[in-house]
Amino acid sequence: MSNYFILPLRALIIILTLFPLNELSSQIHSAINSKKRPVDYVRPFVGTQGEGNTFPGASAPFGMIQLSPDTEKELWETASGYEYSDSSIIGFSMTHLNGTGIPDLGDFLFMPSTGTPKLTPGSKAYPDSGYRQRYSHSDEEASAGYYRVRLTNSGVNVELTATERAGLMRLTWPESDSAFILTDLSHVLRWNVVWSSIRVESNSLVTGMHIVNGWAKNRHLFFAARYSRPFDDFRIINDGKPVIYNGYRFRSRMESAGKNIQFIANYSTKQNEVILVKIGISAVSAANALKNLDAEITDWDFERVRTATREKWNKELSTIEAEALSTEGLETFYTSLYHAFLTPNIYQDVTGEYRGYDQNIHTAKRFTNYAIFSLWDTYRAEHPLLSLIQQKRDADMINSMLAHYDESVESLLPVWSLQGNETWCMIGYHAVPVIVDAYLNGVKGFDAERAYKAIKTTAMNLNYDNVATYAKLGWVPFDKENESVSKTLEYAYDDYCIAMMAKALGKTAEYEYFLKRSGHYKNLFDPGYNLMRGRDSQGNWRTPFYPHLYTEGGDITEGTSWQYTWYVPHDVPGLIKLFGGNDKFTEKLDSLFISEADSTKGVDDIAGRMGEYWHGNEPSHHIIFLYDYAGQPWKTQKLAHEVNNTQYGSRPNSLCGNDDCGQMSSWYIFNALGFYPVAPGSNTYAIGSPALRKATVHLSNGKDIFITADNLSSENIYIQSLKVNGKTWNSPFLPYDSIKNGGKITFTMGPQPNKNWGTDR
Amino acid sequence: MSNYFILPLRALIIILTLFPLNELSSQIHSAINSKKRPVDYVRPFVGTQGEGNTFPGASAPFGMIQLSPDTEKELWETASGYEYSDSSIIGFSMTHLNGTGIPDLGDFLFMPSTGTPKLTPGSKAYPDSGYRQRYSHSDEEASAGYYRVRLTNSGVNVELTATERAGLMRLTWPESDSAFILTDLSHVLRWNVVWSSIRVESNSLVTGMHIVNGWAKNRHLFFAARYSRPFDDFRIINDGKPVIYNGYRFRSRMESAGKNIQFIANYSTKQNEVILVKIGISAVSAANALKNLDAEITDWDFERVRTATREKWNKELSTIEAEALSTEGLETFYTSLYHAFLTPNIYQDVTGEYRGYDQNIHTAKRFTNYAIFSLWDTYRAEHPLLSLIQQKRDADMINSMLAHYDESVESLLPVWSLQGNETWCMIGYHAVPVIVDAYLNGVKGFDAERAYKAIKTTAMNLNYDNVATYAKLGWVPFDKENESVSKTLEYAYDDYCIAMMAKALGKTAEYEYFLKRSGHYKNLFDPGYNLMRGRDSQGNWRTPFYPHLYTEGGDITEGTSWQYTWYVPHDVPGLIKLFGGNDKFTEKLDSLFISEADSTKGVDDIAGRMGEYWHGNEPSHHIIFLYDYAGQPWKTQKLAHEVNNTQYGSRPNSLCGNDDCGQMSSWYIFNALGFYPVAPGSNTYAIGSPALRKATVHLSNGKDIFITADNLSSENIYIQSLKVNGKTWNSPFLPYDSIKNGGKITFTMGPQPNKNWGTDR
Repeated sequence: MSNYFILPLRALIIILTLFPLNELSSQIHSAINSKKRPVDYVRPFVGTQGEGNTFPGASAPFGMIQLSPDTEKELWETASGYEYSDSSIIGFSMTHLNGTGIPDLGDFLFMPSTGTPKLTPGSKAYPDSGYRQRYSHSDEEASAGYYRVRLTNSGVNVELTATERAGLMRLTWPESDSAFILTDLSHVLRWNVVWSSIRVESNSLVTGMHIVNGWAKNRHLFFAARYSRPFDDFRIINDGKPVIYNGYRFRSRMESAGKNIQFIANYSTKQNEVILVKIGISAVSAANALKNLDAEITDWDFERVRTATREKWNKELSTIEAEALSTEGLETFYTSLYHAFLTPNIYQDVTGEYRGYDQNIHTAKRFTNYAIFSLWDTYRAEHPLLSLIQQKRDADMINSMLAHYDESVESLLPVWSLQGNETWCMIGYHAVPVIVDAYLNGVKGFDAERAYKAIKTTAMNLNYDNVATYAKLGWVPFDKENESVSKTLEYAYDDYCIAMMAKALGKTAEYEYFLKRSGHYKNLFDPGYNLMRGRDSQGNWRTPFYPHLYTEGGDITEGTSWQYTWYVPHDVPGLIKLFGGNDKFTEKLDSLFISEADSTKGVDDIAGRMGEYWHGNEPSHHIIFLYDYAGQPWKTQKLAHEVNNTQYGSRPNSLCGNDDCGQMSSWYIFNALGFYPVAPGSNTYAIGSPALRKATVHLSNGKDIFITADNLSSENIYIQSLKVNGKTWNSPFLPYDSIKNGGKITFTMGPQPNKNWGTDR
Repeated sequence: MSNYFILPLRALIIILTLFPLNELSSQIHSAINSKKRPVDYVRPFVGTQGEGNTFPGASAPFGMIQLSPDTEKELWETASGYEYSDSSIIGFSMTHLNGTGIPDLGDFLFMPSTGTPKLTPGSKAYPDSGYRQRYSHSDEEASAGYYRVRLTNSGVNVELTATERAGLMRLTWPESDSAFILTDLSHVLRWNVVWSSIRVESNSLVTGMHIVNGWAKNRHLFFAARYSRPFDDFRIINDGKPVIYNGYRFRSRMESAGKNIQFIANYSTKQNEVILVKIGISAVSAANALKNLDAEITDWDFERVRTATREKWNKELSTIEAEALSTEGLETFYTSLYHAFLTPNIYQDVTGEYRGYDQNIHTAKRFTNYAIFSLWDTYRAEHPLLSLIQQKRDADMINSMLAHYDESVESLLPVWSLQGNETWCMIGYHAVPVIVDAYLNGVKGFDAERAYKAIKTTAMNLNYDNVATYAKLGWVPFDKENESVSKTLEYAYDDYCIAMMAKALGKTAEYEYFLKRSGHYKNLFDPGYNLMRGRDSQGNWRTPFYPHLYTEGGDITEGTSWQYTWYVPHDVPGLIKLFGGNDKFTEKLDSLFISEADSTKGVDDIAGRMGEYWHGNEPSHHIIFLYDYAGQPWKTQKLAHEVNNTQYGSRPNSLCGNDDCGQMSSWYIFNALGFYPVAPGSNTYAIGSPALRKATVHLSNGKDIFITADNLSSENIYIQSLKVNGKTWNSPFLPYDSIKNGGKITFTMGPQPNKNWGTDR
């Protein structure tokens, strides 16, 4: 062997030492592409200020554990625990809801500090009254799967990263002889820990659990935490008192149970000393939390975990390769995709076990169990997105919903399910469109007949929200049931979906039955007003009738009659007919963007208001596409462009309403591509105005959709012409069939509407 | 075929119809024996009045479920829930402690009634203020595995029976259009339900759970109840409010979670209509509670279950075939055996799963898991009895204790364990004598080396009750630890047991180490007083010293120095030597039965007082046998006879102290046979005065011990002579080796002491 070999080998060793293999390969990848990668555009702070209710912390895609700083634990409007405007941090908890309107989770708070431990968080006004610490956005950062902040009071630098079921905290300390890491088992967002327990298994392993009576009424969660350095000492605090042996009747200082438990691990630290804590969680048992932890994080290599999770994100985000008009456009797009992939969440241990809605422990067989289904929101765009580009996960989610149905004491598919609980939040039975859309989109991996049976049983339930009365009478009567108009309309749409699935399965009688029910919306259309209006059990109209009135507990869900009148996604032509034709229809629709609701009361976290069109809440989400059905697609294009540009962005305050487990973000993803699923289950998209110059969508079946928007600019927002798979396309609708095996969608854009385009049906 | 055949066949069918096969065979059995069977002598009311703290309800031998009426739920002194003197019943709950001094359990109360349901129990003084009902002992009965009472207020006749993990209630109703069965999930004895949940799975199946913060700090229990007749209607009550859907946000009326939950099943009943409810329990899950129920009670045949359980009892009780001087003597004996076989309890589902001390779900492999180890009590006679005649169960119990050790955060064998919890009640590490006694008695089925490791680790623990200080210093110093004298003495005995096992396992160094520790009792013997006396860390005697003072939290556990001075069960000759010989020893011992404690305060449920000898509590239990060691065995005989006859019996008030999970009863069983294990682990019994005329003890190895007491009468209480296996026996001690393979023990009794007998050592 000559020196020729030896010298390059040495050089290679040096290179490999300097650049671990992952980083090297990623640099090569960047070099080849000579541009940033999708993951680089994720801005986790988007939506953390104001109404978005997102969180900036660390999560793997669809992760069960989502570590994030909490700045607020009581306020309804800070449902994710973090508000960008807050100047102090309570600590770092393990679970979070992405963008809901109601707080919950925030399990198991960890807070590193120095000095004498305080046992309560203190207030935002007086942060030093508790264990809260101040921080500055200038010393805080977040990226996909990573979060960092320096806590001002103690000087501890906190970094978070996560795998699916385990989190890793890297704490860099000042020199201190009174350093400690506090764990508060009583911390949750907004609600109450009713029971908890803790065990100090060794000087570097702690396990515990709590039960939370929250939005989810009966939620059990366990954790196991390993410390990279054995603590010098420790103390459990139960209801403000140290758990110590008082010399009378023995009790172990290593375990306790109660409602209000803290654990303190004490250290003397050197300047810049690093201590890591890794935490696994499980809804099943402490033993499973430890299994999850030890299976997913086998070492103490923070950078390895961080990089691996970042790579997972990049892989998931690369499902759509996008070119935008600006960096902000790419940031908005990939942050939306990031938000869409935060929820639903894996809810199953590495053993396959999970805690079901019946509180029994089940083992998921041939599927991965998911939880947190905000279905009234996510059936609209989040799930249609998943049924396009995440079919494997979508099938798993459907199997999870079917398991929930099996475990439901009412034999109902989930309405708004949260970690083995049903919150019964919002209305309708919108697991139905999720399942039907997936089935008709060809998602494989669930039993269609079993799913259909669950759907039908759900729609025939005798107890839930007067569905039975609706089925018999033709509407939900307002004297029997709250939000009767919205419920009638949404049931009718869900029933349309059932009819579509019955038809596909050859169940003709049931197809006809549910198709008939899907027409029940007509019963609430008052031709005197050309508006939807409540009726009582005797058929009398709601009198007096205030069409612009927003009122809690009235006939409309989170909105006004003027808004909900447009909720017939499955039969817009039928609705137009009720209006008396396109002109009367579009005339009233135009007025929606000018009129104002009578009351300023109501849901105050809904912004994005363009007249009485409120983009910040879901009932409006499909409305701008209705112009496509009424011969005025250019209005759809104009409004889609306006919403894309005014209601989204890459700043903390860029979300105009609750992200609602990815629905707000998924709306954007579809609209950036140029189309939107007005009625999931119909297999038809309505075409809007694309925000991306180019996009390659990698479908779950391995095929690609190539989308280009020629001449797109901030002025050129109107479609001049369109080709689909090379053929001229003059319809404002895009059937799923035309793209399901991949294809090409070529928009040509211009500054003025082409009123001749989109006139075909 | 001739009529010869047809007629007898018809007759046989008639006979079989009149007498189901079980009853027929039992009648034949009785006929052959021409006498009553052991099970017929069981009087479950024994110990239910006053200090005994037993319960009269229905249980299978060592059953996990023990259904019984509760008359009291708050008072410390009614720890089993039932006091014979009470005149009203709160209801019937599923679990009970037999004879403990502290209340707990009483899970899941069922109460049938009529009229408007009340939701709270009401008080004993004003029973009609709640769901309590009056009853009369004249319309109440109990036998092994069966309990019946007629509730005066409603007229419902309630009958209870049980298998190991499931209970069956037979309710016979008056005619009523407002009959109901209330289940109160918030009912437990003395302590607090911190969380509970319920599900109405169908119109004849209900499941639920609760978590109890009680004596056991963190106890989880589940149930499943099937109703023989579907209820006409039902209602869940949560914190006093009905769980109904109010028309706003849906909630199911079929499930709820909270701290204070009741369930009411409504019926219209006909006169004498029978409705049965069967209930399974589990510490693992509702699903397992249902599995336990469905595996063990497959039908609605109350009589079948009752008879099968009665047969189980008869089989277990027949392990000792006894002949007494009177029916009351047999009742006392077999009721004692019945009490000895009520606890420890099976604590494992039919799946093999159980909830461990670490709150994780474990599966018992190659053993049956037991719970409820009142070891400070039961190491004395209960476990030595089991190691003689229930070796299979004793091995299972030891394996259960080893599992507890594995699950213990402190790596300690159980001290006083209660359904997956450690109560740390009482003192010492008396799992040790249980294991060592079993090992030396040849109990098979557990790993001796594993057991020894757990024993040694327990005895070397650095946290528990200053054991480490004791090991170093030679005593537990009173300035560091409460009850320091009792702890020192009991540790010394436990250490003797460890030494015996170390010796048997060939661990010479450890034998010597623990044998040395077993002599630590000498360090607290004050020759100035000839009494045990506390010393502080510096070696100073407790001053002032009150030898007769009973005081909570002093140097002595539940007693006085005068009593505890006799606690050197493993080295009585050594103790005698400290006194300065037999005369000084017996002189002081005589005085024990005359002297009185200074304080009347203290444990007020200890009766059976003969001077300062308190048979109602365990520290006295071995004392009367010490005369055997000091050359005066006739005094042992006299006192054994006196205790047998004055402190036991077959009436509700016949127990003079807490039965303590069978210890008080096991004392009697040994003494009725004529001997007692003063120091379990020593393989030696001290001989007393037999109460049975004849007894055949069926050992677990298949051999039999035949015991006769010739000339025994109420006057002939002194041993005149003794033969063991045909040989004249002049020692007051009976080595286990002499009877382990069966044998004959023949007492000859007379009215006067034979002071020449028992002089050999």
